[in-house]
Amino acid sequence: MTTEEIYAQIQQKQSFLCIGLDVDLHKIPSFLLEKEDPIFAFNKAIIDATHHLCVAYKPNTAFYEAYGIKGWQSLKKTIDYINQNHPNIFTIADAKRGDIGNTSSMYAKAFFEDMAFDSVTVAPYMGKDSVEPFLAFENKHTILLALTSNKGAFDLQTKTMGEQELYKEVLEVSKTWNNSEKLMYVVGATKAEYLAQIRQIIPDSFLLVPGVGAQGGNLQDVCKYGMNNKVGLLINSSRGIIYASQDEDFAKAAAQKALQLQKDMAAILTQK
Amino acid sequence: MTTEEIYAQIQQKQSFLCIGLDVDLHKIPSFLLEKEDPIFAFNKAIIDATHHLCVAYKPNTAFYEAYGIKGWQSLKKTIDYINQNHPNIFTIADAKRGDIGNTSSMYAKAFFEDMAFDSVTVAPYMGKDSVEPFLAFENKHTILLALTSNKGAFDLQTKTMGEQELYKEVLEVSKTWNNSEKLMYVVGATKAEYLAQIRQIIPDSFLLVPGVGAQGGNLQDVCKYGMNNKVGLLINSSRGIIYASQDEDFAKAAAQKALQLQKDMAAILTQK
Repeated sequence: MTTEEIYAQIQQKQSFLCIGLDVDLHKIPSFLLEKEDPIFAFNKAIIDATHHLCVAYKPNTAFYEAYGIKGWQSLKKTIDYINQNHPNIFTIADAKRGDIGNTSSMYAKAFFEDMAFDSVTVAPYMGKDSVEPFLAFENKHTILLALTSNKGAFDLQTKTMGEQELYKEVLEVSKTWNNSEKLMYVVGATKAEYLAQIRQIIPDSFLLVPGVGAQGGNLQDVCKYGMNNKVGLLINSSRGIIYASQDEDFAKAAAQKALQLQKDMAAILTQK
Repeated sequence: MTTEEIYAQIQQKQSFLCIGLDVDLHKIPSFLLEKEDPIFAFNKAIIDATHHLCVAYKPNTAFYEAYGIKGWQSLKKTIDYINQNHPNIFTIADAKRGDIGNTSSMYAKAFFEDMAFDSVTVAPYMGKDSVEPFLAFENKHTILLALTSNKGAFDLQTKTMGEQELYKEVLEVSKTWNNSEKLMYVVGATKAEYLAQIRQIIPDSFLLVPGVGAQGGNLQDVCKYGMNNKVGLLINSSRGIIYASQDEDFAKAAAQKALQLQKDMAAILTQK
């Protein structure tokens, strides 16, 4: 999928919402636990109820790996279901992978070929040759961690390296890598004030912004500082949407939460 | 497994060798491809032939994920086989995971509970709350990336942050985390000269050292600068051992390569 296709979908749906499919069996409605594949049953219901309100789905692989082979099967069924029924929706494997070159190629194969995701999140610590194998895939995107939304971001990411903070160094150095035009970046919404500076370094790239809602970020601020002329933002919400209700009506409740965010986004797009 | 138990095993086997089980179907003997589970068949033969020469096995998860659900099943069978037949051998899931707190807990569950590995490699970029969930597990170890053996290590890890390089900052800050005594560190053998400085910061920790052999590192140098009074080193070799031959005798050839390294290690231990 190209970024132009993502932008077209944003305009059509008046939404730049990404829904995080972080399925915890302790948090989903208990009646689903009787199903053959509770995780997939949950995801299918959420997808059926929300696909017209969002432009991306982002399963975090940790929540599937925690259930072993069964969890991996649920993840495969989920990505297949999205690709078969909603091929225009951008899919993100939130896997935060990264290893030496030949090993990163195997991760890229896992998520781009075996699973057929449009993109994968990747950690920057191992540098150029740990990320370029992902960038070698046609029509796929690599979403590099820059500034994350957790407290631990202040341990290293915001510390000064030479003349600038580490996360800015990550942005700068990543621009020199082969096929860097396929990069997107993770930038936490809890630090909206940093977005203006980030946009000076990477004006055109799409940013995946977690942390709106549950982690305390503010949609208006993120858009004020982070939006570019092709929107350039995918705002993720996970728990705030998918766990809106634990009753039979959970999917409807999730759709209502997603609709609220979509309406806020439509209003911002109209203002622009 | 405790570090004392690892040390006891090192003394008994006169070896601090870790064998990397990075199984690529394009590189294993072609007759194995007719087996029901070629990856497990390969690993089982390697393990049967080498378990008396090494103290640790380290499957890199990328090589299993690349084959989807089947690959994940092969990984599970491999770790189960090691745990059942050689419970004294230290097992490392080389997964390089890391995410915000509640998500890292799910990864820890995946590798420590579902898969029953003794340890997992973790990336440091997201800081304290991305690593501490792993450290909360009893009798498990978390192996933090410090200085990796690839070229990309020079993109960020060796750049100066404040008064010292980023990888030293990682070592320093990690010592302040809860249960930091359960940390081990990845330090690439291609930079043996850094090991003396690293030992000033973390004198007692075990170091997992990849890059001896295929990536050009030197065993003597690594031991000269990196060994402490409890050895404190796990030297990994993957391709140099497991792909020693592509013929019927591949496991025997792997054992011969492992034996060479074990003899070199025994000589170094005797000198000490």
